[in-house]
Amino acid sequence: MSLPETYLQMISTVSTDGELQMRLAAKKMPTPGPDEVLVRIEATPINPSDQGVMFGWSSMDKATSTGTGADTILKAPVSKHGMQVMKARVGQDLSIGNEGSGTVVAVGENAQGLMGKLVGLMGGEMYAQYRLVKAAMCLPLGPDHTAKDGAACFVNPLTASSMVEAMQLEGHTALVHTAAASNLGQMLNRICQADGVQLVNIVRSEAQEKLLRDMGAQYVVDSSKDSFMADLTDAVHETGATLAFDATGGGRLASDILSAMEAAAARTPGAYSIYGSVKHKQVYLYGGLDTSETILTRGYGMAWGVGGWLLPNFLARVGQEAADRMRARVVQELTTTFANDYSDEISLADALQSEVVARYNAKKTGAKFLINPQLPM
Amino acid sequence: MSLPETYLQMISTVSTDGELQMRLAAKKMPTPGPDEVLVRIEATPINPSDQGVMFGWSSMDKATSTGTGADTILKAPVSKHGMQVMKARVGQDLSIGNEGSGTVVAVGENAQGLMGKLVGLMGGEMYAQYRLVKAAMCLPLGPDHTAKDGAACFVNPLTASSMVEAMQLEGHTALVHTAAASNLGQMLNRICQADGVQLVNIVRSEAQEKLLRDMGAQYVVDSSKDSFMADLTDAVHETGATLAFDATGGGRLASDILSAMEAAAARTPGAYSIYGSVKHKQVYLYGGLDTSETILTRGYGMAWGVGGWLLPNFLARVGQEAADRMRARVVQELTTTFANDYSDEISLADALQSEVVARYNAKKTGAKFLINPQLPM
Repeated sequence: MSLPETYLQMISTVSTDGELQMRLAAKKMPTPGPDEVLVRIEATPINPSDQGVMFGWSSMDKATSTGTGADTILKAPVSKHGMQVMKARVGQDLSIGNEGSGTVVAVGENAQGLMGKLVGLMGGEMYAQYRLVKAAMCLPLGPDHTAKDGAACFVNPLTASSMVEAMQLEGHTALVHTAAASNLGQMLNRICQADGVQLVNIVRSEAQEKLLRDMGAQYVVDSSKDSFMADLTDAVHETGATLAFDATGGGRLASDILSAMEAAAARTPGAYSIYGSVKHKQVYLYGGLDTSETILTRGYGMAWGVGGWLLPNFLARVGQEAADRMRARVVQELTTTFANDYSDEISLADALQSEVVARYNAKKTGAKFLINPQLPM
Repeated sequence: MSLPETYLQMISTVSTDGELQMRLAAKKMPTPGPDEVLVRIEATPINPSDQGVMFGWSSMDKATSTGTGADTILKAPVSKHGMQVMKARVGQDLSIGNEGSGTVVAVGENAQGLMGKLVGLMGGEMYAQYRLVKAAMCLPLGPDHTAKDGAACFVNPLTASSMVEAMQLEGHTALVHTAAASNLGQMLNRICQADGVQLVNIVRSEAQEKLLRDMGAQYVVDSSKDSFMADLTDAVHETGATLAFDATGGGRLASDILSAMEAAAARTPGAYSIYGSVKHKQVYLYGGLDTSETILTRGYGMAWGVGGWLLPNFLARVGQEAADRMRARVVQELTTTFANDYSDEISLADALQSEVVARYNAKKTGAKFLINPQLPM
């Protein structure tokens, strides 16, 4: 099979004069070195972690697109505060796409066994028609899997698995999760049910609550109800959860969770001292669906922490053995525990059309976009 | 020497109907068991950690006192929010005073060697004329020491020592400290200078800056200046500090410190990824001089944490060997590295007079109160 001489790759750049620009750049088709393989990317999801790199702190409500097909260009202004926060990336062409899957179309001499195989990939630059990688980075998928099955076999599966791993590592026995009806949240429910871990799901509507109840979730609390704090405290008390993962990041939700944990501890004789409950209570902010400031009321004693949480940092902390164990489970349970649903499949050019951006950037439950770089543009 | 039949102990109670009441309660003089000693308390400091137990979330700007001497009673209203936060202590008589020093006046049969000795003590209930303790809890002071020298030989000395200990334990190489001109802050400067640890001192006035410069502090930044963030970023960059201890707790100071750490990291090639700087940046809130909400802007990547910090929890974490090592150093350097200055020496009854409370509760630099329970009332 002969390959084209160039391929297209999505690029995001913040200019010194305060503008975000995204485009498709033509790159020379590479030839694999001895230990490398060339993968034709056939499916790559748009995750919140990708959107952070794509748009950063730009004013996306003012984004506009020009051109069509390979010539599509997306532009958005960046505020003074946005420029300050993104200082370190100004002027740099950033490639995007944390994970994807596709077919191996060229191999180096030490990687011939992978020729023609369908593989999952992680490591950036996946929003492109092709990607050259070390053979060791490929996760070969099963014979019945499709590229769509394997497109998101790293970020969400390993993030959800890592939440349970972190719970055990840091001495907690149950979990709280926000934005719990998301793809990731549903996956976490399947893992926790399989592993017998109690999980308190925080959702924002009755429809989301029903979705999780229908899949067997025992603890679901709706933050849109007046009884939210009482419901959350009851659920935290019943499960004994002292660790939470919050996808929203902003506002008072992290603080409310700590308050509920403190109120739950106060119901347990001996769990309380004059400086508050004794057991460490932790909320990790792993996303930023709400970009407003995080407000902490601090009415929960002294044994608490709030912090950022990023998958690569956690994987580095737990080491290769734990990462390999989690990865093997993902392939084993790819179309069950770790299955993903996609609402839309789009081309690279579609992903730069401002009206399409507005849809996937709304980050609504149920709206999950997949890019297929092989779709005609 | 014959002992009185009763002694006075300070008590703090929050009633179910929303009032804080503090008074001196008469207690029966105890007789030491075989391994116990009775100490006549001669000096006990008012630390911020004691004030938390004394007043909690009461409205101290509306406090009033009645009576004199042993009959003095202090009252203050408690807001609905305050009652919510203090729920776990409502209706309980709390005794106060984390540390103190005094003379051993009665001993059990296994503790006769301590008779007549001047000792330092930690463990609560020190705002009293006498305190019965296990002999093992006494830290015998040196022959040249006074009760005043040894009154505060635990909380501040071990807190300051633990900050350096935590820095090493958690893989940091330099420190940031707020309210840095406090007694504790001056102590931390002496420790860091002796140990060759770089320390960024954050103060709130030129007078405080001068005080620390005069004692040899190299990095002092004044948060009242317009150049504060630039000055702080420079100091953090020069020292490489990624751990801070914040005594204020509320407002934006913790967030500003993380922003400065992030801006400093952005100056260092290789320290930065698209998800922010890679090295974990931590701020521990060990006090609450500012009881307003803590605001986090989160413009500092994903490798950061903010949390409560409490000395007993940290000592439990590092274990007995480290605690003993820190304690031995305190006695060795009690009147040098770990020396305390007091602005006022007051009686137990004085400590319940609202106009005196207003003075020590203002928590101003240079105002440090010592209670001498033996002063006539």
